[in-house]
Amino acid sequence: MLSWVDGQPAESLAVTDRGLAYGDGLFETIAVTAGVPSLLDRHLARLSQGCARLAIPCDEPRIHAELLAFCQALGEGVAKLILTRGDGLRGYAPPQPAQSRRILQGGAKPNYPAVNAEQGIRLFPCATRLAEQPVLAGLKHLNRLEQVLARGEWQDAEHAEGLMRDISGRVVEGVYSNLFLIKDGRLSTADLSRCGVAGVMRAELLERAAALGLVCDIRDISLDELVAADEVFLCNSLYGIWPVRALQAHGWPVGPLTRKLQAITRDLLDC
Amino acid sequence: MLSWVDGQPAESLAVTDRGLAYGDGLFETIAVTAGVPSLLDRHLARLSQGCARLAIPCDEPRIHAELLAFCQALGEGVAKLILTRGDGLRGYAPPQPAQSRRILQGGAKPNYPAVNAEQGIRLFPCATRLAEQPVLAGLKHLNRLEQVLARGEWQDAEHAEGLMRDISGRVVEGVYSNLFLIKDGRLSTADLSRCGVAGVMRAELLERAAALGLVCDIRDISLDELVAADEVFLCNSLYGIWPVRALQAHGWPVGPLTRKLQAITRDLLDC
Repeated sequence: MLSWVDGQPAESLAVTDRGLAYGDGLFETIAVTAGVPSLLDRHLARLSQGCARLAIPCDEPRIHAELLAFCQALGEGVAKLILTRGDGLRGYAPPQPAQSRRILQGGAKPNYPAVNAEQGIRLFPCATRLAEQPVLAGLKHLNRLEQVLARGEWQDAEHAEGLMRDISGRVVEGVYSNLFLIKDGRLSTADLSRCGVAGVMRAELLERAAALGLVCDIRDISLDELVAADEVFLCNSLYGIWPVRALQAHGWPVGPLTRKLQAITRDLLDC
Repeated sequence: MLSWVDGQPAESLAVTDRGLAYGDGLFETIAVTAGVPSLLDRHLARLSQGCARLAIPCDEPRIHAELLAFCQALGEGVAKLILTRGDGLRGYAPPQPAQSRRILQGGAKPNYPAVNAEQGIRLFPCATRLAEQPVLAGLKHLNRLEQVLARGEWQDAEHAEGLMRDISGRVVEGVYSNLFLIKDGRLSTADLSRCGVAGVMRAELLERAAALGLVCDIRDISLDELVAADEVFLCNSLYGIWPVRALQAHGWPVGPLTRKLQAITRDLLDC
């Protein structure tokens, strides 16, 4: 496996890293095709915003250059970047100044069944709920036990993703995807100011939809509204768009707007 | 620094560890005096309960033996044990079966000012709130960004600890301690079924208080009740008990019940 730590080939890191101790860091998972990272500007912008919110130093030009070199070396696959607050003092107090650490890991593209994108997927109804924490909401940080527990709820191959709701019951996202619904030609996706991860593909689709003249509401979504939708789909930066065709007894058709947006993500990801 | 990974001296671990990727693990921080860990049975019991809740394999006899050997080698100080779910598959899905990883780090005892225990401390009123997440509540897991953000709110030496409230405003705990209040001779400490860390010293004090015939209520606590308390104190497994003498404009005396329980923790920790 291709693996760099602070720009040097390395497969291990110090046990004193605060990423391990407290999940004190952020990450990005980036599709790489022919040595080129997809949606790089969006990934870097989200990382930079996350660093600002967590007060983690972020040398964006250096990370940018390093990512380009890493993706070139990887060629084809997925590049995962972890940025931690670096080595710790003892205790929670962030070191002042902190020396952040960059960890890059390369892997193969996930081998998702083609039917996921073609025919749509079945959502598992996760019992694990997302806690409401505004100071962390939207960030792709390293505190991901909720996702680990939610993803551990099913092992069968029948469900490709799980539906995550918040503690109050609102529909938020998939375990590793964002969710959109379409009703009467309008798109909606969850407001992520209380919980959830603001995905780069979600951001890209919001911009693309607006450019197409589609209205997209960012708002709270109830389970009843999800069930009453005309079309439902998930998106992320690796697979693009998967239509959602079923959740328990309920089913949705794979509709024309989903297919239109899916074609855009295919072009973006070259998949 | 004394450092073992899976029983062998090592100062680094694989970048693929899920403790780093997702905070997918638990930890214990143990006071060590003359080669002997304090409250070891309570630390091991909490770790074991945490592993059961997160479905992380826990070889308790092996961890017990390893901790005893590590503390013997350390002599004096603090032993930190991190238990992670080990190396990851790609993605959140927990490997079945997982091969958990044991990381032990030794350090010096923290050099807290003697006045903290003698005269009591001033609490910083943290703006960072604890999210309500029942499936993780009580666990000493590695998802600790809330504590990192809360501890980053103050740098002055005037505040030795910070008060953490939950999203709904209830009084829960310190950033790295549990909180008790005393009113009319009754003890109260927060119900930790929604958030918070169930400290081993809290558990020890609950048992000791009961043995002394003291009533202790585990319940929701409002800020008004905290302010109206006769005595307030914090506890953890390293420093025992610190009386709380102030929070913003409000002050409490250091009272007799606090001193009585503090003497018990001094004997336990030999400090």
